Amino acid sequence: MAKRGKINQRQRILEEAAKLFKSKGFAGTSMRDLGGEVGMEAASIYNHVKSKDEILESICFYISDTYISQLAEVEQTATPYREKIETLIRQHIRLMLEEGAAVSVANNDWKYLTGDKLTAFKDARKRYEHGFAALIEQGIAAGELQPVNVSVALFTILSAVRWVELWYRPGRGVSADELEQNILTMLLNGLAK
Amino acid sequence: MAKRGKINQRQRILEEAAKLFKSKGFAGTSMRDLGGEVGMEAASIYNHVKSKDEILESICFYISDTYISQLAEVEQTATPYREKIETLIRQHIRLMLEEGAAVSVANNDWKYLTGDKLTAFKDARKRYEHGFAALIEQGIAAGELQPVNVSVALFTILSAVRWVELWYRPGRGVSADELEQNILTMLLNGLAK
Repeated sequence: MAKRGKINQRQRILEEAAKLFKSKGFAGTSMRDLGGEVGMEAASIYNHVKSKDEILESICFYISDTYISQLAEVEQTATPYREKIETLIRQHIRLMLEEGAAVSVANNDWKYLTGDKLTAFKDARKRYEHGFAALIEQGIAAGELQPVNVSVALFTILSAVRWVELWYRPGRGVSADELEQNILTMLLNGLAK
Repeated sequence: MAKRGKINQRQRILEEAAKLFKSKGFAGTSMRDLGGEVGMEAASIYNHVKSKDEILESICFYISDTYISQLAEVEQTATPYREKIETLIRQHIRLMLEEGAAVSVANNDWKYLTGDKLTAFKDARKRYEHGFAALIEQGIAAGELQPVNVSVALFTILSAVRWVELWYRPGRGVSADELEQNILTMLLNGLAK
């Protein structure tokens, strides 16, 4: 029970930290700010996390590990390429809707990672982009996808999806399902009839 | 001739300022930095521009005026909606490729505008987004476009196009024409066959 409580506290600290980093930036957030949000003395927070840097690492790698494991699963599933890409886009949108603050931190504050952690994060991003690009390439080779330039296709998808963070607010007339379905329509079928 | 020279000097100051604002941010750029780039004493720069704020205004409104006049022209041209939207996407990409630094400043540093100028810039952006959205809506009503949610379609297009600034570098294997054509294919026809 004691251990479980400690894990939950850590989880709560990470969640509040992600929200603070998103709104004030990693550099602009102090352990005192974080203490205020979780209702703990800054000193007590160190019973659950090692440092502000360690919090950032946990958030960034939670997101990049999620992306990488989703990619690995899609790569191994025997479905048409079109479906593989649809699944990745769908997962991207869902992660953003469910873990918006953490995704935002991984997108914007990863540059405050240092040393090995920075290298590992950049490597994970490259692994994801290369894996996603390879699926597009294979889909084109298999005749399932249009013969577009793979980089342009990849970055158009990632840009469209990433920006959801900046403009989408739930409850303003577009539901999460509608958002997902419409982005998939735009990217896979296009706007023109 | 003297007047012409003065206009050219002002133009050159604005171009160098856009590059500096893009790389160092508006807040991080001083008139002394700008003087260094254009090879003038900071004091002499004031013969051509009123202030750093006025430089920012000129850059932001140059870009927003360009968008608005392109939109107005497209609205008045008697072509199918699909073509209207294609033209706007194409112009967006071209402006980014030709005036990358100024577009970046208008995208990122507009928030340093103040008072009436800030209001006018936000109004111009709204006018553009509403006008673009109306064309999508009319295109759907006319049966030329897929019945997507208009906001999702608009922001997917704007996000995909805006991000070109962040990932595209000419001369890395994708030409400007190829970039334009591939983005149009993705957004209008979709990736799937």
